[in-house]
Amino acid sequence: MEDKVLLAHGSGGKLSHDLVEKSFLAKLGNPWLNMLDDSAILELSGRIAFTTDSYVVSPLFFPGGDIGRLAVCGTVNDLAMSGARPIYLSLSLIIEEGFPLSDLDKIVVSVQRTAKEAGVKVVTGDTKVVNRGSVDKLFINTAGVGFIPPGVNIAGSNAQPGDCIIVSGPVGNHGMAVMSQREGLEFSSLIESDCAPLNGLVGDMLKVCSSIHCLRDPTRGGLATSLNEFARQSQVGIIIEEAKIPVCQEVRAMCELLGLDPLHIANEGRLVAIVAGDDAESVLAKMRQNPRSRNANIIGQATAEHPGRVVMTTSFGTSRLIDMLVGDLLPRIC
Amino acid sequence: MEDKVLLAHGSGGKLSHDLVEKSFLAKLGNPWLNMLDDSAILELSGRIAFTTDSYVVSPLFFPGGDIGRLAVCGTVNDLAMSGARPIYLSLSLIIEEGFPLSDLDKIVVSVQRTAKEAGVKVVTGDTKVVNRGSVDKLFINTAGVGFIPPGVNIAGSNAQPGDCIIVSGPVGNHGMAVMSQREGLEFSSLIESDCAPLNGLVGDMLKVCSSIHCLRDPTRGGLATSLNEFARQSQVGIIIEEAKIPVCQEVRAMCELLGLDPLHIANEGRLVAIVAGDDAESVLAKMRQNPRSRNANIIGQATAEHPGRVVMTTSFGTSRLIDMLVGDLLPRIC
Repeated sequence: MEDKVLLAHGSGGKLSHDLVEKSFLAKLGNPWLNMLDDSAILELSGRIAFTTDSYVVSPLFFPGGDIGRLAVCGTVNDLAMSGARPIYLSLSLIIEEGFPLSDLDKIVVSVQRTAKEAGVKVVTGDTKVVNRGSVDKLFINTAGVGFIPPGVNIAGSNAQPGDCIIVSGPVGNHGMAVMSQREGLEFSSLIESDCAPLNGLVGDMLKVCSSIHCLRDPTRGGLATSLNEFARQSQVGIIIEEAKIPVCQEVRAMCELLGLDPLHIANEGRLVAIVAGDDAESVLAKMRQNPRSRNANIIGQATAEHPGRVVMTTSFGTSRLIDMLVGDLLPRIC
Repeated sequence: MEDKVLLAHGSGGKLSHDLVEKSFLAKLGNPWLNMLDDSAILELSGRIAFTTDSYVVSPLFFPGGDIGRLAVCGTVNDLAMSGARPIYLSLSLIIEEGFPLSDLDKIVVSVQRTAKEAGVKVVTGDTKVVNRGSVDKLFINTAGVGFIPPGVNIAGSNAQPGDCIIVSGPVGNHGMAVMSQREGLEFSSLIESDCAPLNGLVGDMLKVCSSIHCLRDPTRGGLATSLNEFARQSQVGIIIEEAKIPVCQEVRAMCELLGLDPLHIANEGRLVAIVAGDDAESVLAKMRQNPRSRNANIIGQATAEHPGRVVMTTSFGTSRLIDMLVGDLLPRIC
């Protein structure tokens, strides 16, 4: 086998079969994937969550993760944010002719490890190879299927006045980790992406409170955009306190230097939850027991006032409106 | 709104929401998609088929179809080839900065029309915008979910000696239609892609024979590759007769001119079925009633001899081994 991906690896013919067997089945193989039929056949019953995302992050490898880990976590987390237990993933790659097979292997191994960590199986897939210049190195799409346990009913439209807003940990790490690599900002080499599967954490939270109202992983657009989505979808106001929002020192410093707001920076291993006021302390206590969310915090409340808007009380005691991200901070963050 | 796709349309923030509302919800909206949550929540029960494909066809618009139609048909057909009734699709786009919004609209309208034709709903999606030069115009990924009726058991490994091989219509049109556009071969402007959803046809076939053994849509690698996959997976030999394989006159002429074998050319609206010898005539008769497969034909048999191999009796009375596509005929055909 050559040491680079060839156009013929995407032809559907002999070399495609070789690539599937040597690069994918060898690492990701399971009874469904091994069938090599047009679809995987799954036994499912009940309320099923279904989601998809394409991943175009640049660079492919960044501190704390890579596109393979991202492609598993992103879709696992979208399922988890619906309260689902993620079970099955699809994996579709678009690869540029000439891409090193050794890098492809690293990415597939990362998919394998992260899928194991999240407890999901890759059951169906696709590989396309496009000529040089038609894609920047490699893009991945994953779709996911998960099971929503009875009694769980999570949606962006479920927030009620009086509910508490909880963030699972410091915000902005993923975006800043990728930006530091792209812009070659040396001082920021300490910042690692938070990229991680959150289904375990959501499972813990549902154990102490099956009636969580809203969950979202604040990826593109950051925490500010997720909170605005909740405010709009639920027609509530949201008031948050700046001092209570966890932000790592390095992220804060880099944001100040670059004139960015950490609330607009992407995360890939954080969640924001909205729960009834009475449940907030017990959910928070449970979250803090999980290593992924030791620094979780209640950052604010939903209110009946100013429905559809997010307001932040700053550390100086003033208030300001927090809008969705406008314009584009940094493309290809995920 | 600008007349071109901007990086900010992929930021996850305000312009992303505008794009989703104006370009996607307006045309594809339904109760699941309109929720705008991280996952669609579906009620499913039984044996569920799950599949994915990325579409990178160039050019985006070709005689008989476009990337939007292709992205729906390809995934609908992969589900149908498992005997499933396709129900739900995901739709994920990767768009190059500067892509005309009018072309995006045409593609979304094509997705809408084809989804309606196939009876499926787009219930979840994603849009990424990448900087100029990082992708060639626009790629699409769709994943699909479908329901397999009880008693249906279709797999590439189910062929038995004595079974008949049926092709649903002339082969090679899709690949030749795309190639003619790419290479500017004027004489071939008569060739239209066969791109079409095949779930209706499969439903018809299952009505007269619920025990179809194998089904596949011979896309990349063409009919030759699908037959080789069946021969390998089922460990049977396959004998086909050249004279019985339907090929349009224009496709045959273009293949002869270019030194190509129509059996290696991609199709997007054809299927090859393997059924028990006793069922073949009734399945064929039913297929010929469907306008998609008026020229369906029995092209050969599965045998106990030379397991794993495909042999063709030529029009000259000789026999030759038919291999999978080796090398790459034409990249970005689908």
